Formats: sequence, structure tokens, C-alpha cells
Amino acid sequence: MRRTVFFISGRTGITAETLGHGLLSQFEGMEFEQVPLPYVDTPERAVAACRRIDAAAERDGVPPIVFSALADPVIRDRVRRARGVFFDVFDTFIRPLERELGVRALSAPGRSHGLVDYQAYMARVDAINYVQMGDEADPRHLDRADVVLLGVSRSGKTPACVYLALQFGIRAANRTLTEAELEAQRLPAGLEPYRDRLFGLTVRPERLAEIRAGRAPGSPYADAERCRREVEAAETLFCNEGIPCLDVTCMSVEEIASTVIEARGLRRRLY
Amino acid sequence: MRRTVFFISGRTGITAETLGHGLLSQFEGMEFEQVPLPYVDTPERAVAACRRIDAAAERDGVPPIVFSALADPVIRDRVRRARGVFFDVFDTFIRPLERELGVRALSAPGRSHGLVDYQAYMARVDAINYVQMGDEADPRHLDRADVVLLGVSRSGKTPACVYLALQFGIRAANRTLTEAELEAQRLPAGLEPYRDRLFGLTVRPERLAEIRAGRAPGSPYADAERCRREVEAAETLFCNEGIPCLDVTCMSVEEIASTVIEARGLRRRLY
Repeated sequence: MRRTVFFISGRTGITAETLGHGLLSQFEGMEFEQVPLPYVDTPERAVAACRRIDAAAERDGVPPIVFSALADPVIRDRVRRARGVFFDVFDTFIRPLERELGVRALSAPGRSHGLVDYQAYMARVDAINYVQMGDEADPRHLDRADVVLLGVSRSGKTPACVYLALQFGIRAANRTLTEAELEAQRLPAGLEPYRDRLFGLTVRPERLAEIRAGRAPGSPYADAERCRREVEAAETLFCNEGIPCLDVTCMSVEEIASTVIEARGLRRRLY
Repeated sequence: MRRTVFFISGRTGITAETLGHGLLSQFEGMEFEQVPLPYVDTPERAVAACRRIDAAAERDGVPPIVFSALADPVIRDRVRRARGVFFDVFDTFIRPLERELGVRALSAPGRSHGLVDYQAYMARVDAINYVQMGDEADPRHLDRADVVLLGVSRSGKTPACVYLALQFGIRAANRTLTEAELEAQRLPAGLEPYRDRLFGLTVRPERLAEIRAGRAPGSPYADAERCRREVEAAETLFCNEGIPCLDVTCMSVEEIASTVIEARGLRRRLY
């Protein structure tokens, strides 16, 4: 079964997409053709959006699902004339929220994904730069870390660090355990002072081999036996050193990040 | 006016937070104390969540606002017994969606922010590695770029590249225009073959000076006059070379990314 789904918004579309993805993930065995339509912020763009919805309805023989986050009631009413099945965040929630808060809503596209405050922006940029410019050789680098992710090469540390920085303003350092360190079964000396910030990532050896082969097909680095040995050594080290550790084989970057925050009790700088 | 707001979810909490932020951004002049409660996936955690909501109601003298994305109806019913004002994504939208799709929902926490498909995961990791490991000196690097962001130092290119990679799986290269290049008013030679992928970022000189001073206070690099000169030269270059360009002074990373996608007609690898 196939259905076209539109995500319409007056701005970036993040709210409409997140809502839609959250809901659609509850329906298995269906295929969704996804069409983002951000920045629908003028009557002209509303008309153009309607045309695309109508065309999809015509083509599919069934009205598309439309998730929208249109704060402007004029634009919202215009878009609603199209042949879609509408789920709008504002239509649904804004009146009850107004009643509860005793304040009128703006009725203009929100800035929830806009630049809200300079402090928060700088915390975010600082954390991203921290990840980007991280110099493992510089001992002062780890002094500024909120958390230090440890793991074998290609265990998913970098994407998790980037996500922690971008989404939460958390400075996450990234430390790859080398073959030599794994063999020695000792925590690298430089990490000792930061024990309470360490967090281990691990991954099933078969998956690791697959990921490494994607980067360097046929190399010793992607060898199944070597992957198995490295993963086993890393997990033993985490266990012996009492470092909390997470198997990320079936986890998304978002899940890894939110689990690390929970497990290490990290303070977010962004909401 | 101050109000406590909870974001409760059976998994990462991204859906509940995004919905809540989108809605709250419509209410100005209010202050919200935000409390994320992810991974409320057992009756015990539901009870603990209730306790926190009740404590906030007691302390504030008014029931907190609760945005939730609880797919499990048992957990949802339990949490609803707390003294909060509830806005739940599933309660509201899942029945109408079931009717429309003719399929029953899972009633279990969704994997919308979980690891859905290996291809998508690899596209994302590949794009993040592309940004991380980018070697400007290597001409083959730009061959793989979907887009090349140009701008003076500290104009916001790196966060935008990281976001494009993480959120959309887009490979965005990052090219700083040096003082010498700006003075020469010529597109750096290496960029010529990639003309149709270039996109300029610019920022108001006062803001640039502020950002640079945050990194290197009092340095010539943060000098107001030098910032003004660099920004002016970059904008002139973009204009003369016909490179589309965006003033990001008042924009968030999300807004920059979605505008670049729109403007350059980029194909997302992730939804």
C-alpha cells in the first residue's frame, strides 16, 4: 500500500515532519511517498501547495495525508481547500493552549527553529566547533568535554558527538581505542582524570565488519576476525574499568545521544 | 508569567519536544521551565513521571503543561492521572489516521527516531564523515559535494554543513574565503568546476565581529573594520560571480539548512 504524504509549514517544516514521522512510524507495511513543502508563507505559495496536493490526489486516486504546522490561519484555510486529509498542529492544539495559558497565540509562523537567543546559539556553535576542531593530542581538549565517547574505530562515536553538539549543545569528545590499547587492556593514561565522563559505545562485530568494509573493502581493518577481537577487547575493557557502555548496533544517532544524556546525567544547554 | 512544561515520551522525546516547542513559540512574554522525560516505557517510569508532574503542580500552584508522545495506551492512561494539562500526539491523531489508512496502529513506541533502514543510516554517516574529514586541499573532495558553502571565517558555514549532513544526509563542503582571495575579488580557481554547487553565506559585520571576539578577544581578526571589509568583499564577489547568497545574521542553523536546500534544489537522502 502506497500513500503520498505532504509536510507543509510556514517555515522550516521541522515541526510538521517530526509530528508526521512520529505518527507514521506507528503504521507498518505501508509505503509513504514523502514530500516536504517548507516556507509556505504567502497566498501564492499556498496555492502552489494546493496544486501539488491535488495533483497527487489525482495521480494516486486517493487523497494524500497532509501534516501541517501552519500558524497563519489565512494560509491554513487556503491550504485546507486542497484534496488532502489534514492534520494540523495549530488547528488542533493552539486554542486549548490559549485557554490554558490565558494568552493569545501569535498566529504567525513560529521561530521555534529560528534563532531564538544568542546565548543558546553560541552554546551550539561552541559545541559544534568543539567536535570539529577536537585535537586528541591536546590534553586541554578533554578538560572542556562534557562527555568522552570511547570505542573501536567505526563504532558510531562521531555521529553521536555531532548530534549531541547540534541538538543539545553538549561538548562530546571522541576517543578511538587503538589496537595497541585494546591489546594492553588498559585505559589510555590521558583519560584517567576524566573517568567520570567516559562512556563506551560498542557494536556487534558483524555489523562493524560491514561498516568498515563500506569504507575500505577487503582491507585487514574490515576483517571479520579482527572486528570480533577488537569488539571483545573493548567490551572487556569497559567492563573491567567500570565504564558504562551501550550496544548501538540497532540504534539511531538520536537514540544513542538521548541514552548517553540519561546515563551520564548530562546537562543540556539547548532545549 | 512562568509555567513548567514537561515533554514525555516512550523513546527519545524528539516528537514531544518538537511539537511542544512549535506550539510554545506562539506564546510570547511567557517563561517556560522545560523538563524532558524521555524513555517513559514502563509502568514504574510512568509513576515516577506522574510524581514529578504532581510535584511541579504543587510547587507552581498551577498544573504544568505536558506535551507527550506516548504510543502505549496503558502508559498514556497512567501518566494522564497526574495533575497536568495534557497534549498527546497519539491520543489526538492516531484514531483519525487509522481510519484514513485503514490499518491499525502499533500502540508501541515508534521508531521514527530509531534506526529504520541501513541505507539511510549509511547515507547519514557518510555525509557526517564527509563534513568531518573534509580536506580542502584534496580536489577530489569537492567532486563528492552536493553543495559548497562559501563565506568569510565564522560566517556559520560549519554548523550549517553539519546540520545538512545529520538531518538530511547531504554532503556539504565548507570553503572559507581568505583575506587574499577576497582582496583579489576572484573565485578561487579550484571552485570553478563546481560553480553550480556554490552557495554563499554572509552575516552583518557587527555580528561577525562579536562572534570572532568570542573566540579571539581583541585580535585583529575580530576588528570591526576588518570584519566590515571582509563581509563587503565577500558580498561583492558573490554578486559579481552570480553565486546565490544568504544573510544568516538572524537565522538558526535549521533555517539556513532548509533555505539552502530550497535555493539549490538539493535532493535529501533522509526524511
